[in-house]
Amino acid sequence: MTAAPPTATRPRLALRAARLRSSDIREILRVVEDPRILSLAGGLPAPASLPVERIAVAVDRALARTGPNGAPALQYGPTEGLGELRELVAPGTLGSPRLGAAAHVLVTTGSQQGIDLVVRALVDEGAPVVVEDPLFLGTRQVLEAAGAQLVPVPVDAHGIDPDHLAALLAGGLRPALLVCVPNWSNPTGSSLPEARRAALAALAQRHGFTIVEDDPYHGLGFGRVAPAPLRDHAPDHVVTLASASKMLAPGLRLGFVGAPAWLAPTLALIKQSVDLHSPTLNQLVACDLLADVTFLSTHLDAVVRANAARAATLRDALAGVVDSPAPDGGMFLWGRAAVDTRAALPDAVAAGVAYVPGDAFTVARDGSHALRLGFATLEPDRLRTAAGRLRAAFTGTAGGVPPLL
Amino acid sequence: MTAAPPTATRPRLALRAARLRSSDIREILRVVEDPRILSLAGGLPAPASLPVERIAVAVDRALARTGPNGAPALQYGPTEGLGELRELVAPGTLGSPRLGAAAHVLVTTGSQQGIDLVVRALVDEGAPVVVEDPLFLGTRQVLEAAGAQLVPVPVDAHGIDPDHLAALLAGGLRPALLVCVPNWSNPTGSSLPEARRAALAALAQRHGFTIVEDDPYHGLGFGRVAPAPLRDHAPDHVVTLASASKMLAPGLRLGFVGAPAWLAPTLALIKQSVDLHSPTLNQLVACDLLADVTFLSTHLDAVVRANAARAATLRDALAGVVDSPAPDGGMFLWGRAAVDTRAALPDAVAAGVAYVPGDAFTVARDGSHALRLGFATLEPDRLRTAAGRLRAAFTGTAGGVPPLL
Repeated sequence: MTAAPPTATRPRLALRAARLRSSDIREILRVVEDPRILSLAGGLPAPASLPVERIAVAVDRALARTGPNGAPALQYGPTEGLGELRELVAPGTLGSPRLGAAAHVLVTTGSQQGIDLVVRALVDEGAPVVVEDPLFLGTRQVLEAAGAQLVPVPVDAHGIDPDHLAALLAGGLRPALLVCVPNWSNPTGSSLPEARRAALAALAQRHGFTIVEDDPYHGLGFGRVAPAPLRDHAPDHVVTLASASKMLAPGLRLGFVGAPAWLAPTLALIKQSVDLHSPTLNQLVACDLLADVTFLSTHLDAVVRANAARAATLRDALAGVVDSPAPDGGMFLWGRAAVDTRAALPDAVAAGVAYVPGDAFTVARDGSHALRLGFATLEPDRLRTAAGRLRAAFTGTAGGVPPLL
Repeated sequence: MTAAPPTATRPRLALRAARLRSSDIREILRVVEDPRILSLAGGLPAPASLPVERIAVAVDRALARTGPNGAPALQYGPTEGLGELRELVAPGTLGSPRLGAAAHVLVTTGSQQGIDLVVRALVDEGAPVVVEDPLFLGTRQVLEAAGAQLVPVPVDAHGIDPDHLAALLAGGLRPALLVCVPNWSNPTGSSLPEARRAALAALAQRHGFTIVEDDPYHGLGFGRVAPAPLRDHAPDHVVTLASASKMLAPGLRLGFVGAPAWLAPTLALIKQSVDLHSPTLNQLVACDLLADVTFLSTHLDAVVRANAARAATLRDALAGVVDSPAPDGGMFLWGRAAVDTRAALPDAVAAGVAYVPGDAFTVARDGSHALRLGFATLEPDRLRTAAGRLRAAFTGTAGGVPPLL
């Protein structure tokens, strides 16, 4: 008996392990389990916004249902998801994008699974995939695990630049996929305007690639409504991902994929081998809440108001230390600091505050002075305290704070 | 706009689609949504055995919990699973095998995900994987999707034969993996005796391969206790998979992986990119039920008694038409009929009964006269009716039954 892998499996495992570095978010979240640290590192919805009572009602109703094989909430279900949930989310709900025909909607175990299924279906090892620079860490992990070649396109205040992409395509790039977050992106908070959506969709049609629009923040605009999804511009070339994590609760682990007709059956076959189907109890709970427009509008309104106030609170409290555009939606500030943000992270954590350094998200760009700050989780008072700690750490005046780590 | 995939993605998709044929079970379950058909095709627990009331209590308790980030049942959680659940299942529970150290236990979205994660970590395209012949369909799907080369070893009444495997290894076979169901296997109902477990583990150690023991039926022996798991014989060479689907409820979609120390971190990294983590609400419910030994022993006892009675009822009712060994556990009869079971399936469905033909499970063996019959789902009266229909279909006397399809 040895502590090493069996010889026959060692090469493969080494390959996989080298590719899959644990995400920075994950490692930092380990550190910030210390309750003395105020975390701006995560993307957790505000604790007070989790609709615990409403979900308790929905669970009771779900468990009371009966079917030919007993309580459907507890029994095996169809791989694509429950028919009534697919019908409900297909045309879009309050806070969630249109997904197309219900027949081509797949219920997934979080929208993270949607990214993974599409990449499994369409991305060969070594294949080029166009990504935002900076990009969402969850997408980065899937692509790195698949051995894809990341082709970064810089993101500005309006998301990915179609002209930059067009130049790459003219130069011979033939991507398997383009992945983007069209609304209030993670990490930058930028959104694609209508014209860029149309331009990206036209490029996909012309050059024969598929776009994944990963849209979990669709309903989180501050008094703003998301433009029509990219899929409206090129339904056969766009996969739309939606999520129940920001709208309802992350712990339910439910996402929704709207796929082109040619792709949907393959995604379902892959999902069947991956986890058979997503939990039926959770699906019935989502059905109940997403069909309750009164609940949903009140709930989303409260979430957005709280997020907007917190974004302003955090940004104001960091004036002169972290420079960031004022976000108009989403859950994150994308800021710039005078310090090297990765090098400064241990000081910040020692001062009692955590964030994700910018270079975790960047591919070709310099992220060394950038950082992502999640504003949705903490109460305004604690955001101000966190900002004070960050200010002290970044300006070298943190001496008065007792070291935590 | 076209109905075809974009050109750049066509080759990959074609490859994947060719590999991933939908499982026979899935296609048949589509047909048997017709309530007039009695299905022996699935592996669904008996509707009456689903612990609806107990789970309702557990959900209320789970939602009442509070944590630093709000209700942990609804918030993001750790990729490996909740610490208390990992601690609970690691030493084994009533009805579930020992998994080793809690630090190397991973909570998965059903045990199907456990198979997929291990194959992703260890099986390269084209790599040989030793499987039981006949084998579990879920394993077959994962391996076919991964492009593995299936190396069948015949299963007898005592599972996979180590001597047969030893001969293949002596001939130069260097498998990446061996996958087996050690207790009351699906589809054959066979179990590996202690001596074969030791022999297989010794082969894994000697030839440097990893064994996946997929053990969802661990607690479903009819008055019998499963032998010590294979992992006890070679902890560094065995991955053990357990499931909450048969013990508690499939709709929760929870499984548990006990991995060697060298493999566990890689599995967690892959899981993070696959679905971030399994639903926290469902994990807290499982914690509650698995820690309740009084509930669990009463529940498992009732499930096993019902299963044993149903197995005998179905087997007796098919005497002379389907020949099968008397099962001593699990959920399936593995039978032999005079007819070609795939060819006869449409007649059976027309007569109002469904099953899975043997060749869905076989690799090199002839499964044309075999069939798998699930005895756990239907009440005894309906099992007798189903058997009557099968008898009529197989003996050509089904004329009196009005055609259903």
